[in-house]
Amino acid sequence: QDVLAAAPSTAGVGVDQELISSVPSENPTFVARNFTEAEVAYCRAQPSPAASFAARWVGKEAVFKSLGVASKGAAAAMKDIEILPNQAGAPEVTLHGEAKSAAESKGIAKILLSLSHSDTVAIAFAQASTA
Amino acid sequence: QDVLAAAPSTAGVGVDQELISSVPSENPTFVARNFTEAEVAYCRAQPSPAASFAARWVGKEAVFKSLGVASKGAAAAMKDIEILPNQAGAPEVTLHGEAKSAAESKGIAKILLSLSHSDTVAIAFAQASTA
Amino acid sequence: QDVLAAAPSTAGVGVDQELISSVPSENPTFVARNFTEAEVAYCRAQPSPAASFAARWVGKEAVFKSLGVASKGAAAAMKDIEILPNQAGAPEVTLHGEAKSAAESKGIAKILLSLSHSDTVAIAFAQASTA
Repeated sequence: QDVLAAAPSTAGVGVDQELISSVPSENPTFVARNFTEAEVAYCRAQPSPAASFAARWVGKEAVFKSLGVASKGAAAAMKDIEILPNQAGAPEVTLHGEAKSAAESKGIAKILLSLSHSDTVAIAFAQASTA
Repeated sequence: QDVLAAAPSTAGVGVDQELISSVPSENPTFVARNFTEAEVAYCRAQPSPAASFAARWVGKEAVFKSLGVASKGAAAAMKDIEILPNQAGAPEVTLHGEAKSAAESKGIAKILLSLSHSDTVAIAFAQASTA
Repeated sequence: QDVLAAAPSTAGVGVDQELISSVPSENPTFVARNFTEAEVAYCRAQPSPAASFAARWVGKEAVFKSLGVASKGAAAAMKDIEILPNQAGAPEVTLHGEAKSAAESKGIAKILLSLSHSDTVAIAFAQASTA
């Protein structure tokens, strides 16, 4: 029984999409409130910063959904969900602050994320699991 | 070996999308055939009932795909896949009738679902697992 | 501990989308380089070959992302990721060549995939797991 309780299990999934044009990545207040310095530096260095900010934005929303906690709307600290590329170039999620506490309280130990964008739409999928 | 057989494992995944305008949520026959009374009450109370019906519709399709059973097209009982918000506002899946039987015969014990819609497009992702 | 190490765990997820019109399925070089003979035969027999090729194309990209290996861009052997319908009509992934080696080196034993297309957009979700 204990072994089964410890076996990895998916706790939640999250999907999100937005028109790239609807994410206000030119707005410095929006960017400063929602993205870490490392995320900003990464997005600004990409071929299309607007697409990169939008992909990360929907990524944060998808991760938030995968945690299965009630939304606080604009008050949700999206900056606490940091998404940066790993060595293979794949998006890797690091939680800080309240997002980290929420995940820990639910036994969530791993969050997998994938991002995609076309010319106009950004989409993200997240999966939170217990190991 | 028995322990491993009982460890949770993903049985199937499902993704679906539709233009919100292509889901005939104004058609009472379509609504009555495919949505439960609780779903109809919930969707009608949302800011955009059309978007809510469309999100639930693609959610049902995504859940159906995650079950991995052969499609019966229009004859598939989408009403047997009920999607209602839980206390945190996240979509929760309850199966009835044939959908429930199909899931049980495949050992599927849990279905996770996430929904998203923009102004024009609804999208859903479902994951069916054995525990 | 050994039992836990062997319990199934999700290794990676992948999402991808493309406008159907942006996938050059009328280009024989593109098709021959990226699709197996069985895939070509299947797609050509569908009601909308362009939509079927596009769905498989984003499916291959999603599977590639789920493997978590560094992208080689145009040099990635997408033909090594073969997607054909199983008996229930659901997409089933078979890996060949380098994709197979990459999966084996990461302990990936199963890849689940779901495809969807509207009139204009194709989308795919993949999940790679260790059992």
